Amino acid sequence: MFELQIEPRFNETDAMGHIGNTTLPVWFEHARSALFELCHPALTYHDWPLIVAKVEINFHGQTHYGAPVSVRSWVKSIGGKSFVFYQEAHQHGKLTASGETVLVWFDYATGTTLAIPDEVRARLAEHLQPSAN
Amino acid sequence: MFELQIEPRFNETDAMGHIGNTTLPVWFEHARSALFELCHPALTYHDWPLIVAKVEINFHGQTHYGAPVSVRSWVKSIGGKSFVFYQEAHQHGKLTASGETVLVWFDYATGTTLAIPDEVRARLAEHLQPSAN
Amino acid sequence: MFELQIEPRFNETDAMGHIGNTTLPVWFEHARSALFELCHPALTYHDWPLIVAKVEINFHGQTHYGAPVSVRSWVKSIGGKSFVFYQEAHQHGKLTASGETVLVWFDYATGTTLAIPDEVRARLAEHLQPSAN
Amino acid sequence: MFELQIEPRFNETDAMGHIGNTTLPVWFEHARSALFELCHPALTYHDWPLIVAKVEINFHGQTHYGAPVSVRSWVKSIGGKSFVFYQEAHQHGKLTASGETVLVWFDYATGTTLAIPDEVRARLAEHLQPSAN
Repeated sequence: MFELQIEPRFNETDAMGHIGNTTLPVWFEHARSALFELCHPALTYHDWPLIVAKVEINFHGQTHYGAPVSVRSWVKSIGGKSFVFYQEAHQHGKLTASGETVLVWFDYATGTTLAIPDEVRARLAEHLQPSAN
Repeated sequence: MFELQIEPRFNETDAMGHIGNTTLPVWFEHARSALFELCHPALTYHDWPLIVAKVEINFHGQTHYGAPVSVRSWVKSIGGKSFVFYQEAHQHGKLTASGETVLVWFDYATGTTLAIPDEVRARLAEHLQPSAN
Repeated sequence: MFELQIEPRFNETDAMGHIGNTTLPVWFEHARSALFELCHPALTYHDWPLIVAKVEINFHGQTHYGAPVSVRSWVKSIGGKSFVFYQEAHQHGKLTASGETVLVWFDYATGTTLAIPDEVRARLAEHLQPSAN
Repeated sequence: MFELQIEPRFNETDAMGHIGNTTLPVWFEHARSALFELCHPALTYHDWPLIVAKVEINFHGQTHYGAPVSVRSWVKSIGGKSFVFYQEAHQHGKLTASGETVLVWFDYATGTTLAIPDEVRARLAEHLQPSAN
């Protein structure tokens, strides 16, 4: 499990007085940084090996400015060329949003999908969500 | 069908050289403005009747800076208290992203879901996706 | 003079009910696209010739969601290695924000400032603000 | 002096491979949260007493993804109805950006500027930049 503490920013609120719906995808991408380091330790852009195929976010309650948000992330499942990352946002001890991201191992130069290397697969497996085992 | 033309902004690119994944939810929300006017013509915040329950985005290809993007939106289905909005982003005549948003009729003051009013249901029905009829 | 029409986005509002202060720099950067094309017609990133040295924004009134904003831009002055771009945002016929950006001709590969090429200088001069002549 | 540690987000990079110029105003606004609490401890939106009159940012060097940024803030000067906040962003021990924000004591209900209350003035004075004394 990866955990990231986020302090909501004032510009992330919207006129409804809560954190805008477009902010959660930003927080979840930011919380995937741990994953980037695990998949591609060099963090260089020119040989970045991942592309996002799908993002899904479920809103369970409103998130507000003025209190920290904890984003928790797990690997949900690992396929041949892609894997699924599952994330939750909690504020005041309540789940306010959850989501899944499908990430594909990808060669940007040739535009083709590739098999996830074994050493990455092993590192990903260390972060599998318990219930998914 | 609602159609919105978007000129990608430079700050919407990321270090991969393409439009970042967190930008599509922003464009899709922006393209839901037509929907806001249809559901709540006054556009006043204090009695805003909609809350987003789910956002899902599928990435079919990369979107780039320097060419316009057309976002097309339809009502996919209408339930008792919620409806589904389907959206597509096209650039250079190719589908680069598609997505669905589940919107719930909601009373922010009491925090309860409500039945979609009949006149709104009728207006939504005029924008049903042909294949969904 | 360059003019760009912008439809404020809901995610650009903040909890004060108006367009957030961090949105104006985004709109002004977006309105500098015309300038990018004029300075660097190829629009390729790897030999991008400009770097921003300074951004200044004055807020003259609140900007709101629900009505278009017109961003007007002029070249204010042209120096040896840099020039100043002046921009205004108008909504409902009123000036709501104005700002200046100092842009420097720059070689990212060597990290050095360069003289603005004569042909660019001539193109910039065509967009000088009348009062600045 | 207020200090805020920021971990750059991937969506804050742009196609130039560095942190985009529109991100610094966001970080600086976020670092003004300490100020919000000092000026308006309740943090309620309906009686928010501050409006931003001017934002100025100087870029001294590029900021990059992958290393923390320290944002340091001071009160630079205090006038009758407004005060100036000065901020710096440092990465790898180098100053990459600095900026000033002019904030005005403001009644949103009547749209008028007001004198800064004495107790707020006293609290602001505790954070005056040493060189500004």
